[in-house]
Amino acid sequence: MTVPASGLFTDFYQITMAQGYRAEGLHETKACFDLFFRYNPFGGGYTMAAGLEDALKFLVDARFSNDDVKYLEDRGIFKKDFLEWLKGFTFTGDVYAAPEGAVVFPMTPILRVEAPLAQCQLMETALLNIVNFQSLIATKSARVCDASGFGNVMEFGLRRAHGPDGGLSASRAAFIGGSSATSNTLAGKTFGIPVSGTHAHSWVLAFENELAAFRAYAREYPGNTILLVDTYDTLRSGLPNAVKVGLEMKERGEKLLGVRLDSGDLAYLSAEARKMLDGAGLADVKIVGSGELDEFIIRDLKSQGAKIDVFGVGQNLVTAKGDSAFPGVFKLSALTGEGGWSARMKISDNIQKSTLPGRKQTWRLRSSSGEMMADLLEIEGVKHDFSNGITGRHPFLEFEKKFYDRITSAEPMLKQVMREGKIIAKLPSLEDIRKSAQKGLETLHPTNKRLLNPHIYKVSLGPKLAEETQKLRNYSL
Amino acid sequence: MTVPASGLFTDFYQITMAQGYRAEGLHETKACFDLFFRYNPFGGGYTMAAGLEDALKFLVDARFSNDDVKYLEDRGIFKKDFLEWLKGFTFTGDVYAAPEGAVVFPMTPILRVEAPLAQCQLMETALLNIVNFQSLIATKSARVCDASGFGNVMEFGLRRAHGPDGGLSASRAAFIGGSSATSNTLAGKTFGIPVSGTHAHSWVLAFENELAAFRAYAREYPGNTILLVDTYDTLRSGLPNAVKVGLEMKERGEKLLGVRLDSGDLAYLSAEARKMLDGAGLADVKIVGSGELDEFIIRDLKSQGAKIDVFGVGQNLVTAKGDSAFPGVFKLSALTGEGGWSARMKISDNIQKSTLPGRKQTWRLRSSSGEMMADLLEIEGVKHDFSNGITGRHPFLEFEKKFYDRITSAEPMLKQVMREGKIIAKLPSLEDIRKSAQKGLETLHPTNKRLLNPHIYKVSLGPKLAEETQKLRNYSL
Repeated sequence: MTVPASGLFTDFYQITMAQGYRAEGLHETKACFDLFFRYNPFGGGYTMAAGLEDALKFLVDARFSNDDVKYLEDRGIFKKDFLEWLKGFTFTGDVYAAPEGAVVFPMTPILRVEAPLAQCQLMETALLNIVNFQSLIATKSARVCDASGFGNVMEFGLRRAHGPDGGLSASRAAFIGGSSATSNTLAGKTFGIPVSGTHAHSWVLAFENELAAFRAYAREYPGNTILLVDTYDTLRSGLPNAVKVGLEMKERGEKLLGVRLDSGDLAYLSAEARKMLDGAGLADVKIVGSGELDEFIIRDLKSQGAKIDVFGVGQNLVTAKGDSAFPGVFKLSALTGEGGWSARMKISDNIQKSTLPGRKQTWRLRSSSGEMMADLLEIEGVKHDFSNGITGRHPFLEFEKKFYDRITSAEPMLKQVMREGKIIAKLPSLEDIRKSAQKGLETLHPTNKRLLNPHIYKVSLGPKLAEETQKLRNYSL
Repeated sequence: MTVPASGLFTDFYQITMAQGYRAEGLHETKACFDLFFRYNPFGGGYTMAAGLEDALKFLVDARFSNDDVKYLEDRGIFKKDFLEWLKGFTFTGDVYAAPEGAVVFPMTPILRVEAPLAQCQLMETALLNIVNFQSLIATKSARVCDASGFGNVMEFGLRRAHGPDGGLSASRAAFIGGSSATSNTLAGKTFGIPVSGTHAHSWVLAFENELAAFRAYAREYPGNTILLVDTYDTLRSGLPNAVKVGLEMKERGEKLLGVRLDSGDLAYLSAEARKMLDGAGLADVKIVGSGELDEFIIRDLKSQGAKIDVFGVGQNLVTAKGDSAFPGVFKLSALTGEGGWSARMKISDNIQKSTLPGRKQTWRLRSSSGEMMADLLEIEGVKHDFSNGITGRHPFLEFEKKFYDRITSAEPMLKQVMREGKIIAKLPSLEDIRKSAQKGLETLHPTNKRLLNPHIYKVSLGPKLAEETQKLRNYSL
């Protein structure tokens, strides 16, 4: 990723607040912030967390250079001693995180950051920026790959992505979510993601005719020929020419890998293409479909019997069509006072915009089949004997209780990954993240994965957290 | 912007095609490509072009480093002599462009690139990536600023933007489109955009109570105090406390700059806030409104009498809610052969996906009031005497003609900005781009700017281009 290591990669108000905290003697008060979200994107039933590695690297690297400080000085509202303090800034806090690729749910923290208050504020925007975007795309990718069948999606959104890094980070996150390859060469080099591609319409237009163009491509890439067949007329020109070249390759002992359909009705054209290819003895030639696809269109195409083996998904994947922003927030949940940690909570006019107080852990409860049953949010350190079952409470509807029993495992989702500014966890390879993401998704019930109006996966408050929450809500009345 | 200068910032198929063109002896054939789009984003009536400066810089800087070439070599499909050729790659072509900030319309080129075929292909993806994203955001910003009234929008989307550069480039493009300031400190430093901000809920939570938090902020920033009033209860706590602090500041000879509403119904709360502030003698305190705003919500709030002076717009601006990708494409329109330029055209099953052939210029026709009348696309170099009026043809409906008369000016939109790989135009400052963008928009009729279902601004083909287009269409039948 192209994260600038500059402390200026933040909202201006974080810097003005940091100076304010310092003036008030609050800047070194240890604070706990949760990075969490209030609803799943795309109207779906889950979120896939991503971006942790880049977020941690930013925390390690972030500095205010002399140039940065000079820029701030010129704003005319920062005092000399604060600017000096910025020059010495390094992040020295602790971070607890759900692993990249984990399936996570509303109100549960993706990250819990514990650090001096001013440090938390200065890092907030970058953490949100990185985790929001990559989680958005990983989630979109998981949905697209769920609709298409795992292993059948190529991502090629770079030309429509939100700038260079909007492409680079999107390729990374899409791969975590399940896509198999990218067209983004730089992402291939940077992250080791397999790169792939076919050819463009311009290739066909650059030759005397379509057949000459196809033959030339087959000559150049005999082991990797996928022909784009819709430059002139898919059924009357593109496919017949592709069949001709496929048979010529066969004769030479080579193999036409596939044809690509990029316009027209993909359900109709792919069925026709399959018939033509099969009829010519080219049954092993794959059909690639592309053109403004998303998870809904792919689901519909499949339900209508489209004969598409590989889906090329571009802009709607890397720009997260339908929900172009992930709703992650970073909220103060506790401060240290004389008696240790003291919970904090924002009480909004809108209860759903309230926060949950205290240093929290998420326990993932599973049934005997290994299937995910519910997440229980509880104050960190509070232990429960889950074997007898446990009563959880709704995060906002205080009188709505739920008893969970036949729990066969309860696993803490947040693991410490950074201590005093140093990464202490071994960061998994991207390929390993992708695999464990896939494994995790498999333990989520299909009804929770329905593309729209899914069965809602339960997130409940444990007894101690419910008590704390109620206390602070009552206090505010 | 954080554009990587690497030639790998491209789709993989551009590189495989480049090798193929080279093998076929086509790589040095001079080609003409248009970067254009087929419809305006957001259901709107115009597009604002942006991203040219970064696009040109990429063309100047793009190289294949030894590392890049090594990565490609390891793919196993590139030949030694092609890899050597890549090591010596520099872009040596010509570029004609509509200026940044220009109002542009479907089917008219934003860029026209003339260069050896392989060079055009290798640069395509980066040009699209940069111009698509920045044009998307500039257009969104122009719409938001049109709804709010020019000068009343602060952009603060960094935390929800598509990665670090998704934030940085978005701040730049939003400023071109009309926003007045950004929260993105790095964008402030990089582009000279004014930075601004208030404080967060966490500031309030970090103090004993809201009043103490407000007082502390006023103490620290007496010249720049905007208080966020919705942490607990906007009407019963936030506003009364803000009024108290406002009066204290007044007593000290200072001035409370504003209050910020970030939740609840902004039309209702802003009217109540205005009453409370005015009633307390604080009529000059501004009201800032924020919270998932976009052009439609702002228009509705204003129509309902909301008393909001400044709109803070975040995620929906920088992620282009409603159309998260700009539909720009890069299509071959001509190749040089023995007799000079020879037009090329993609004939799609879907006529609207066809392209327009040849090296084209866009003539902007204006009426005597200076108002934009229509754009006429014509083959470059063809001269018309517009004073007698001119007949244009619909780009796709060949029999639909339109006669334009009382034309008082016809200005070519595409100016040469690069010759043989060198920038030859003086690139205007960002502030100048923003001003000329605003001026340009003022000459577009308000009905063309309606947020949805606008009056469609006419783009017609001039006589020579219409003839060429028809010839190639007939030829393909």
